[in-house]
Amino acid sequence: MMTSNNKSSSFVRIAAAQINTTVGDLAGNTRKIIDHIQRAKAEHVQILTFPELAICGYPPKDLLLKTRFISDQMERLDEIIPLTNGLLVVVGLAIREGDSYNAAAVIHDGSLIGVARKVGLPNYHVFDEKRYFARGEFLSVFHLDVANVGVLICEDLWHPETVANMASTGVDLIVGISASPFSVERCIEREILIRSRCQDHTVGMVFCNQIGSQDELIFDGRSMVVTPHGRIVAQGKAFCEDLVIGDIRFEEIHRGRLAVPIQRDTVPTETPGREAVRIIHSDGMTDPPHRSDFSLDISRNPFLPKSIEMKYDPVEDAYNALVLGVRDYVRKNGFENAVIGLSGGIDSALTATIAVDALGSDHVFGVSMPSRFSSEHSKDDAAQLAANLGIGYKQFPIETVFATYLRLFEAEFSERDADITEENLQARIRGNILMALSNKFGYLVLATGNKSELAVGYSTLYGDMCGGLAVIGDVPKTWVYEMARFRNRLAGTALIPENTIRKPPSAELRENQLDADSLPAYDVLDGILHAYIDQDCSVDEIVELGYDGMLTRQIVNLVDRAEYKRRQAAIVLRVTSKAFGSDRRLPVTNKYHA
Amino acid sequence: MMTSNNKSSSFVRIAAAQINTTVGDLAGNTRKIIDHIQRAKAEHVQILTFPELAICGYPPKDLLLKTRFISDQMERLDEIIPLTNGLLVVVGLAIREGDSYNAAAVIHDGSLIGVARKVGLPNYHVFDEKRYFARGEFLSVFHLDVANVGVLICEDLWHPETVANMASTGVDLIVGISASPFSVERCIEREILIRSRCQDHTVGMVFCNQIGSQDELIFDGRSMVVTPHGRIVAQGKAFCEDLVIGDIRFEEIHRGRLAVPIQRDTVPTETPGREAVRIIHSDGMTDPPHRSDFSLDISRNPFLPKSIEMKYDPVEDAYNALVLGVRDYVRKNGFENAVIGLSGGIDSALTATIAVDALGSDHVFGVSMPSRFSSEHSKDDAAQLAANLGIGYKQFPIETVFATYLRLFEAEFSERDADITEENLQARIRGNILMALSNKFGYLVLATGNKSELAVGYSTLYGDMCGGLAVIGDVPKTWVYEMARFRNRLAGTALIPENTIRKPPSAELRENQLDADSLPAYDVLDGILHAYIDQDCSVDEIVELGYDGMLTRQIVNLVDRAEYKRRQAAIVLRVTSKAFGSDRRLPVTNKYHA
Repeated sequence: MMTSNNKSSSFVRIAAAQINTTVGDLAGNTRKIIDHIQRAKAEHVQILTFPELAICGYPPKDLLLKTRFISDQMERLDEIIPLTNGLLVVVGLAIREGDSYNAAAVIHDGSLIGVARKVGLPNYHVFDEKRYFARGEFLSVFHLDVANVGVLICEDLWHPETVANMASTGVDLIVGISASPFSVERCIEREILIRSRCQDHTVGMVFCNQIGSQDELIFDGRSMVVTPHGRIVAQGKAFCEDLVIGDIRFEEIHRGRLAVPIQRDTVPTETPGREAVRIIHSDGMTDPPHRSDFSLDISRNPFLPKSIEMKYDPVEDAYNALVLGVRDYVRKNGFENAVIGLSGGIDSALTATIAVDALGSDHVFGVSMPSRFSSEHSKDDAAQLAANLGIGYKQFPIETVFATYLRLFEAEFSERDADITEENLQARIRGNILMALSNKFGYLVLATGNKSELAVGYSTLYGDMCGGLAVIGDVPKTWVYEMARFRNRLAGTALIPENTIRKPPSAELRENQLDADSLPAYDVLDGILHAYIDQDCSVDEIVELGYDGMLTRQIVNLVDRAEYKRRQAAIVLRVTSKAFGSDRRLPVTNKYHA
Repeated sequence: MMTSNNKSSSFVRIAAAQINTTVGDLAGNTRKIIDHIQRAKAEHVQILTFPELAICGYPPKDLLLKTRFISDQMERLDEIIPLTNGLLVVVGLAIREGDSYNAAAVIHDGSLIGVARKVGLPNYHVFDEKRYFARGEFLSVFHLDVANVGVLICEDLWHPETVANMASTGVDLIVGISASPFSVERCIEREILIRSRCQDHTVGMVFCNQIGSQDELIFDGRSMVVTPHGRIVAQGKAFCEDLVIGDIRFEEIHRGRLAVPIQRDTVPTETPGREAVRIIHSDGMTDPPHRSDFSLDISRNPFLPKSIEMKYDPVEDAYNALVLGVRDYVRKNGFENAVIGLSGGIDSALTATIAVDALGSDHVFGVSMPSRFSSEHSKDDAAQLAANLGIGYKQFPIETVFATYLRLFEAEFSERDADITEENLQARIRGNILMALSNKFGYLVLATGNKSELAVGYSTLYGDMCGGLAVIGDVPKTWVYEMARFRNRLAGTALIPENTIRKPPSAELRENQLDADSLPAYDVLDGILHAYIDQDCSVDEIVELGYDGMLTRQIVNLVDRAEYKRRQAAIVLRVTSKAFGSDRRLPVTNKYHA
């Protein structure tokens, strides 16, 4: 057996298989796990890890309430177990033992030797784990020939006391399995945190993170093998599958046990103390939890100020995240092709560019739907973009349909002025055209609205909000420009036409309309929106930040009044720390506007 | 002071103010609370109770995360406190004491004497309370001149151990404040449970439940004053505001303390034991929690078999619930009028009838939008319904717009047969017409799809799914018929035309189309859907119930494939134990179909 053979060798070979699972695809995910076990064996890996809930995909949401969903996972685990000869495999799945648990199966040399349960269940932001899971009452340490291995699941790594308790048992290596959603800030915070945990306790770690996208959530991977001194010896790629293999010297990995400073302290009640650590041996035998009441002193803040590390470019990261988000949403839902309404503006241009990077130019179709209010440059810019991207392109002028609608309403509307009705009608005709093409040819419609527009309701429900996926719905308008410029730099040419980037934004739904007629400059708007939406600030607090009071109140009212539109919006791919959707659950009926 | 004056009188006068709060309307809700305090004083009430989270309305969802939302409630509480001279007032609100708690302020004779915290936080079905609140660590009993009063909040009443622990301290009366959402089964279960709790512990109770509707949730009220023998001495109306006043004889209310059987037992860890009961005196002084480890033996099941009590007619209840749901959604969102597309079919007929009962016939507008495929009887039935209901009625034939769209697509679609594209296009033209009327005249569009249709995706996204509220989106098709017949019986005439009820259902989107061409009989369909959606059964389990395997698999596939439509559906008013929306959170991207 591999682990025994290597006991006397100078290193332990550890791997994180950051795989792209699909929620509910138990058979497909299991095939992928087995494939990576074979690959890892060929690479002489001794400890192989898979992401959190790898067998069912993360997050499975209410599938977990279906009568057989959990037991079906156990059947898949039974397929995996016999294939693990010669190595230790840790794989995430949901289990039921009385209650349901978010768990990690620990399989050693063909036998299931134990199951670790997740203790800290996130129930904030996009997470609802307390809806589904009971809290694990103990931490699990596995005493193996090759090393003493502690297994933690995602959130448990974030809690310093939990890691401290685990480390205090003298583990050589912490296996952390995770499904940690991407946001532009999160990925660097996570890396700093993991390295800090290793340094704090002089313990090695393999951190295995899911990659792929599931509805609104994007997972970036970037798994790591980290030494007890916080050095990353191997790191997974971002936004794609990877078998991340790292060797840690045997002497180094065993140093942790000796170096850890033990100190008497109290343990917060929500975190299992050292007495709750259960030790499991490689034969599957379990030591009774040992009673004691000491723990480690963890005083230093694991977060460095953000300015210190700029390892990842947030604009590049966000762009690549959206490419993965589009690809996975389209393909995992059984589509091959996407259709996008091209207005000549920057939002649809960026959306189309992302779609081409995700699906290939043969699988993206651009549709221009000019109206009586569309400028010539809009039509030109849309055609130019399509040519630059090499995508199929058609024009469907909406004038005849629009005119027919106006005649239908002629008597009814005769005593009223033209207003938002006629503007929305144009947007809805365009939505109908895109949906008709979707129905006839099986294209998925991609919505093109950005976060700033969605926030203030500067978008038409059932019009430009049509589509299965709002690609840039979590990208503020100021970032839209950044991402467009980033992509052009990468291309070394104006893939997105310069005129599209430079011209003042307009919905072109009435004569000479400009965004600037209704909204402040986008940097001001995005500043207010960030404080109100991402930070939950009150109007007074936003004014204290230096924004105009009347403007702030006006923007806040727009945001609040548009809640009903967002409730019916397409799924928004999440790239910031607070996206519209499951991250932000406001009532539609609401009279609080402070 | 009223309580002192009445100490020697023969009864205690207890009231539940079941008020219709609006989420976020702190000022308006506070005015309503103050108004009911004045009314209660005039009625010589000694103990007055308001619903759970009455100051902010329930459920406030992520408003609770806004920086000032909780402190703003404390300011409102300060307005209420000085107005409570002469009585005990219990009012629900969110508080922050380190963490945030779902709490009840207990105010006595002009002073805040204490705050009770909710212990059991529901985090299932439509509830997310663990997202917002920390769990209360103790139960609160208030020793007053008039009685010893224990205060429990909603979920805590449902847990027998919690009530037993509270009762074991010798409380005379339990004040239960609640925001318990209506479903046709829930309201009678709740009543049986409350009476059973009183009998089990020989303790009186006032149960104060919110009324009104908030987005998808409808609250029915039906507050109760119950004697220690489980007799209801006063019960609030269903679906409207009420000040429910009940007198319990002083001797009777004090009997509980003597009659309660005390027995040594263990307490489940999730429920605070008797040692966690904190006693607060009317001067606001607090006894330290007393240590002991005994509790009560609660062995009998509080639920009687459902067949025993048929006090409420579920069809009538569901109808009245939807009337309230429509009225509150429309008015609380600042609308006065609603517009409904009338097809001549039963779904739109029932929706319009509910809307008229909710808003009055002057505030409902029916629009018929016949196509080339509409039968004469459809147009006649729609016109007849509008005449019966006395509502405004207009016809907008969609043929000219439809024909214009077809010409627009002529070249593109020339090599393809007519299919679902053309059917959806008609539905979307109708959606556009309704939305244009909404934009121009400020009507709220009410969607007319039923639960069975929404389940199998027999509905057009951005078409007949348009609207702010899906009125009958939680009503299975078989119930739609029951409710139509109920309403006609109530009217003593065929308010909903007989032909509408009798004819075979059809979407009339192509020649001679009938629902029965694509779907099984509705009683079979609703049976399968109930098992799959409401009960989370697997395909195998549904087949074991006696349904055809091939049919079941086909229906399950339709349900799963329509998840993306429901994600963008209008808010569905909830009347069953599992509605689409926050009650059922399935991923769109999902390959589990077992």
